[in-house]
Amino acid sequence: MANTETLERFFSYVDQNQEHYVTRLREAVAIPSVSADADHREDVYRMGDWLIGLFKQLNISYEDAEPGTHVLDGKTLKLPPILLGTYGNDPNKKTILVYGHYDVQPALIEDGWRSDPWKLTEDSTGRLVGRGSSDDKGPIIGWLNAIEAHQKAGIEFPVNLKICFEGMEENESEGLDDLILREANRYFKGVDAVCISDNYWLGVTKPCLTYGLRGISYFKVTVSGPGRDLHSGVFGGTVYEPMTDLIILFSKLVTSDGKILIPGINDDVAELTDEEKETYKSIEFKLQELQSAIESQTNLFDNETQTLQARWRYPSLSIHGIEGAFSAPGVKTVLPCKVSGKFSIRSVPNMDPDKVTACVEKYLKEEFAKLGSKNKLNIESLHGAKAWVSSPNHWNFVAAAKAVEKVFKCKPDLTREGGSIPVTLTFQDALNKNVLLLPMGRGDDGAHSTNEKLDRSNYIQGIKLLGTYLHEVAAVKST
Amino acid sequence: MANTETLERFFSYVDQNQEHYVTRLREAVAIPSVSADADHREDVYRMGDWLIGLFKQLNISYEDAEPGTHVLDGKTLKLPPILLGTYGNDPNKKTILVYGHYDVQPALIEDGWRSDPWKLTEDSTGRLVGRGSSDDKGPIIGWLNAIEAHQKAGIEFPVNLKICFEGMEENESEGLDDLILREANRYFKGVDAVCISDNYWLGVTKPCLTYGLRGISYFKVTVSGPGRDLHSGVFGGTVYEPMTDLIILFSKLVTSDGKILIPGINDDVAELTDEEKETYKSIEFKLQELQSAIESQTNLFDNETQTLQARWRYPSLSIHGIEGAFSAPGVKTVLPCKVSGKFSIRSVPNMDPDKVTACVEKYLKEEFAKLGSKNKLNIESLHGAKAWVSSPNHWNFVAAAKAVEKVFKCKPDLTREGGSIPVTLTFQDALNKNVLLLPMGRGDDGAHSTNEKLDRSNYIQGIKLLGTYLHEVAAVKST
Repeated sequence: MANTETLERFFSYVDQNQEHYVTRLREAVAIPSVSADADHREDVYRMGDWLIGLFKQLNISYEDAEPGTHVLDGKTLKLPPILLGTYGNDPNKKTILVYGHYDVQPALIEDGWRSDPWKLTEDSTGRLVGRGSSDDKGPIIGWLNAIEAHQKAGIEFPVNLKICFEGMEENESEGLDDLILREANRYFKGVDAVCISDNYWLGVTKPCLTYGLRGISYFKVTVSGPGRDLHSGVFGGTVYEPMTDLIILFSKLVTSDGKILIPGINDDVAELTDEEKETYKSIEFKLQELQSAIESQTNLFDNETQTLQARWRYPSLSIHGIEGAFSAPGVKTVLPCKVSGKFSIRSVPNMDPDKVTACVEKYLKEEFAKLGSKNKLNIESLHGAKAWVSSPNHWNFVAAAKAVEKVFKCKPDLTREGGSIPVTLTFQDALNKNVLLLPMGRGDDGAHSTNEKLDRSNYIQGIKLLGTYLHEVAAVKST
Repeated sequence: MANTETLERFFSYVDQNQEHYVTRLREAVAIPSVSADADHREDVYRMGDWLIGLFKQLNISYEDAEPGTHVLDGKTLKLPPILLGTYGNDPNKKTILVYGHYDVQPALIEDGWRSDPWKLTEDSTGRLVGRGSSDDKGPIIGWLNAIEAHQKAGIEFPVNLKICFEGMEENESEGLDDLILREANRYFKGVDAVCISDNYWLGVTKPCLTYGLRGISYFKVTVSGPGRDLHSGVFGGTVYEPMTDLIILFSKLVTSDGKILIPGINDDVAELTDEEKETYKSIEFKLQELQSAIESQTNLFDNETQTLQARWRYPSLSIHGIEGAFSAPGVKTVLPCKVSGKFSIRSVPNMDPDKVTACVEKYLKEEFAKLGSKNKLNIESLHGAKAWVSSPNHWNFVAAAKAVEKVFKCKPDLTREGGSIPVTLTFQDALNKNVLLLPMGRGDDGAHSTNEKLDRSNYIQGIKLLGTYLHEVAAVKST
């Protein structure tokens, strides 16, 4: 157990320096480090430099890994640096690797922001509104604030910290996996556990620790026929239309109420154990929270447990759209010659992405053959990530749970998530260490949406949480 | 019958002035009068002025109808003038109304043009390549060339001509229908028949007269649920997805081999009479022409007659695309909250657009109800145009057929078309006069495609055809 007096001193310092932390976050939000837009690449570099400045200030030694170049919007661009920081090197302390990202989603005030997305603006309820406030600038600065608070308050830092902050998370983390695999036995050597603060509480009132994520298998299904787009007046009724075939195929993927129709997809889904079943009972979650998040009452299930299980531990299939067809407003009578439908399957333990792909290909080919069409079918698997599930009984999670109790005076919910954070599984597999997801923000932060915010209290309590977690890690007996 | 010696003189003058006509067409093509692009609106006005200059030169009196304004690309723009020209006013002559348009489709050399689309370029086989060459600058200038040739060769013009040239045909002919209805009893009064040269031969070797067009009923079907787009990882499996519902609905519209599944749609289709059946036998059309036009072998039927009947006299249903879903290249895991699918039904005699709409609405509502989804369905009928069919035995067609024989030494095919030219029906209904479609270009001109062309021989023979048609009209006994 961490020393209570020490923690009190840490908490008190953090509380007294709230404005300083908010100012620091404001500086970071003002840099529009949008990684998916070539026009903002300089800003991403600038954000990296801003962090390096902070590293220097805090005596964090760092390496600036150059992941190379990539092509974006037709331009060859240098990838933003992956910042590898090292703070402390005491062989008697545990070493924790913390990961986060300093790039952000795009944001345009025209999209419906109530204030300039690049100016951190606090409203009357303490919401710090700005792009990147919660995803992920608040959390990464949170780690650095915790270091600074220890230095300023004269408290010994409880662990060695390895830092890995990337600038391409919102653009498929290009270059990161390669770096992790390359550095597993060098820079990442000696890491005892990993902590990632880049997700959210399930709801808005209670902290959680996240021990599972769904995987994803993303497919592009192309049906092509004519050599060029045709006029539906001249050719409608005389040719096999690719759009008709694609629509019929896609209608066979999933039912309106979400049942996946592809044979084999549900076969490997891990059994729901009695132990797991128990865990849903205590989780703080109300259907109204779902309805308020989706801004409608079109939920599939009328109870919380089924809803959470559907999100966390069962696969789902969503159709995202069609490339090559008419997609603009208005009227156009085109008969598209080649259309590519996109859908993805969210996968869960123990599904295997290769088997998912095999099932999808077999089924779609069979269904297409039934059509008797002269068009051509092509199926591409664009992206595959395995589901991740960790043990919430590991000391890494136990330490985090204790930290939550100390800071928030309640036990955290143990949750999983429906989405994927692929780096989680990469770290677990490459380092063979436990990975913990320790969120700072709330479920309604709107990370990829307009008016993204981080509540002031979550930010400030979050700094305490990250620091306390490290003290609890240090106090852990078993390694 | 028109006087042979007179026609010989006309033909000879036209042949001798080929280069002059090509130069005139080159001047017109050089004006990029794209009506659907606000940035080109000045060019459309300029094209109107260019024609007015020609009207003056040829002593065609004209009125410049100002159809008002409209909004395009967020700008309020003056609609291009509808040019109403009058040439001749002899009560002893018939009066023919000719319609055409001086605006064109967009064209960018990057789209695959082998030469600058705004520079009429003749290749070694006499193809005059340039945007608008065939659609519809060649034909409208053809009428004016025919007038000029009569003047210069000292031949009396055989009829009174009313001219209606619009500049918005490629942008839904905004303002035209209103004008026609308004002017039916004033400017258009006394018209005996109408001739439109704005379509194409069925193939590439033989002229045709066109006596039928399919109509169109265009639908936008919207399924909506959540109040905002969602992340498929977080929400996939827990909500009714609008995209799933729309895809299932659309899969019930038409089979891969083109059979419309909406009850009632096929009920009113005019019976195929023995007389009509006969007409298909003599039509010059080969399946290879279809395959070369669609650049594939994905034709539905393995014979010409079924293909032509499917194009001309049976309804078809095409799905054009989906608005609101992910349509860009790449990977995006959005779960769209509101998606609008667009499809159209090409209608034929004796289908009624109102009944088509009623059948579509009833069927889609029933099918949607079967899904048991909590999403909302909305069906809009965006556009409806009745099919048009004329009598090829009318003197207007007989005159045109004789003209074809004189110029091309063969009988024209009597054809229909799969597309719609809504003004055809407007003229027929508003003036209660026979309308003839008398094409100048060939089936492979690529009117709305890249490398649009008009063959030099079609252009020159076309000028003769238009003039001869007017002589044959004058020679007709019955009125």
